[in-house]
Amino acid sequence: MRHTRILSQLRWCAFLLLALPLLVRAADPLPSWNEGPSRQAIEGFVIAVTTEGGKDYVSPAERIAVFDNDGTLWSEQPMYFQLLFALSEVKRQAPQHPEWKEKQPFKAVLEDDHKALMASGLKGLVEIVLATHTGMDGDTFRDNAKRWLASAKHPRSNKPYTEMVFQPMLELLTYLRAHGFKTYIVSGGEVAFMRAFAEEVYGIPPEQVIGTTFGSRFEDKEGKLSIQRLPKVAHNDDGPGKPESIDSIIGRRPILAFGNSDGDLQMLQWTMAGEGKRFAGLVHHTDAKREWAYDRKSDIGHLDKALDAASRGHWTVVDMAKEWRRIYPFE
Amino acid sequence: MRHTRILSQLRWCAFLLLALPLLVRAADPLPSWNEGPSRQAIEGFVIAVTTEGGKDYVSPAERIAVFDNDGTLWSEQPMYFQLLFALSEVKRQAPQHPEWKEKQPFKAVLEDDHKALMASGLKGLVEIVLATHTGMDGDTFRDNAKRWLASAKHPRSNKPYTEMVFQPMLELLTYLRAHGFKTYIVSGGEVAFMRAFAEEVYGIPPEQVIGTTFGSRFEDKEGKLSIQRLPKVAHNDDGPGKPESIDSIIGRRPILAFGNSDGDLQMLQWTMAGEGKRFAGLVHHTDAKREWAYDRKSDIGHLDKALDAASRGHWTVVDMAKEWRRIYPFE
Repeated sequence: MRHTRILSQLRWCAFLLLALPLLVRAADPLPSWNEGPSRQAIEGFVIAVTTEGGKDYVSPAERIAVFDNDGTLWSEQPMYFQLLFALSEVKRQAPQHPEWKEKQPFKAVLEDDHKALMASGLKGLVEIVLATHTGMDGDTFRDNAKRWLASAKHPRSNKPYTEMVFQPMLELLTYLRAHGFKTYIVSGGEVAFMRAFAEEVYGIPPEQVIGTTFGSRFEDKEGKLSIQRLPKVAHNDDGPGKPESIDSIIGRRPILAFGNSDGDLQMLQWTMAGEGKRFAGLVHHTDAKREWAYDRKSDIGHLDKALDAASRGHWTVVDMAKEWRRIYPFE
Repeated sequence: MRHTRILSQLRWCAFLLLALPLLVRAADPLPSWNEGPSRQAIEGFVIAVTTEGGKDYVSPAERIAVFDNDGTLWSEQPMYFQLLFALSEVKRQAPQHPEWKEKQPFKAVLEDDHKALMASGLKGLVEIVLATHTGMDGDTFRDNAKRWLASAKHPRSNKPYTEMVFQPMLELLTYLRAHGFKTYIVSGGEVAFMRAFAEEVYGIPPEQVIGTTFGSRFEDKEGKLSIQRLPKVAHNDDGPGKPESIDSIIGRRPILAFGNSDGDLQMLQWTMAGEGKRFAGLVHHTDAKREWAYDRKSDIGHLDKALDAASRGHWTVVDMAKEWRRIYPFE
């Protein structure tokens, strides 16, 4: 008798648990997405892969969703935010490096000499990134990144960089997780830099952040243990590096991928080449007024081949100006 | 009124949901562990870090547990099982490699010439592993591994290798997951080989398997995409390589680590060096009758420095012969 009672109560529980999401869903989970093709495609995909018994059903364990970061989850203009962090770190660390006063490309940074900085080219930028991101232990770097993120302001909005995130994408991440997806970042950004804010800002825990990595060395100095960051790139998580890291670290193929540039092309292709229903999305920066407008001719967030591939493959291209009611959370 | 009713039902649900684990726990979750110091240490640790409001409480997100594989979750005698796979693959793939008939160390494998094989040393073994693990795409390798795992038998027990797993450790993995832990493998074994059975056998999904990796290359051959496995080691997940990969891939420090050899020393040290309550365990192979007995003098699973560190640090050393009621599931 007691068992029957408990069973009946459990059934009622099951009903409530099933009904609650429906009640919650009555409140729009994607309020910053206008009705339009992208929103329709997203909702259609999620319903298809989560409807039990449906032909496109995918078990929760296989619901892997991967997102580029720069230009996909947050802005990347006038320059990748991580580069702005590196430039800021050169200035902050300059007192410990008196030699930088006379040494390019550091001299250019310290003197705000943009022309000399540009002249140093990619090689100069790499030098700046290595000098500010390596040669220290992991804890020190994380503290540096967190300090900058907590204090630095974006030159145009005067908001912290962590507020320059896309409200519609935050909603999408939450919506996917509510439907059993595991959301990952797979980005050309350096992994420890992104981990310094990804959990708080995106709800994405450190173990779901994949990015460019530097070499590292476990060090035991008379019992004081640390992970030292070495000045060499171990993995460049851009272009083909993205499916490579997905395969190496996640070990299964995502069913949804979102990017915004040619650096995401191979990740999107890899995602779409699997069996069953899949989703590929591109954030198209079309909003010069509220954000920025750029694609085929831009150095940052260069979007050309991936735009053609999206057209050929009927991928979802989000027209930011038309489809996003709100860009940033602070609006 | 309606709301009050639902709230009251929800309270009843909450009670049932809270009570159910207690009812389930009444059945011993670790039946293969004798009452003894290791079991006590494990249970004490889990209660301490999961008791809300307690001074040692750790939030679920931080409950990261890492396990070595060879000798910790399954046996590793008379030889690492992955090496036995490699030797078997040499024989299976020999028809496609007629040159192996005359070329060491392959000739030795094909002729079962153990003396010549040993003479080829570590260099020979590496050659055999590279020839059987790389130079193909990821899907092909996974199929090869699965085929072997499904058919090969251990020379002593005549059981499939996936049954040579330790029943007490399977129970421990389940017990930890039931208490909100995320269980990871961090092993010197190659990552794709372990992923071929880890989910089915240990309940550990691919994205929670960390191991030695080979270089890889995303390939697009006229639209046919693949991840090619390259014949070079990208990361050697042994010794200091373990905390390095934990930091790079998980991005947070585990609170529990289990190993069985000196190759696990740095992972155990790294785990214990964090703040708050932590657990380090060693499986000590003391059972010559039911499994194997070896430690300081063994080449495979060499356990010497880590045993001293365990003694100094009061880590948990599991005396397999005394503390494990059952070794394998098939007993």
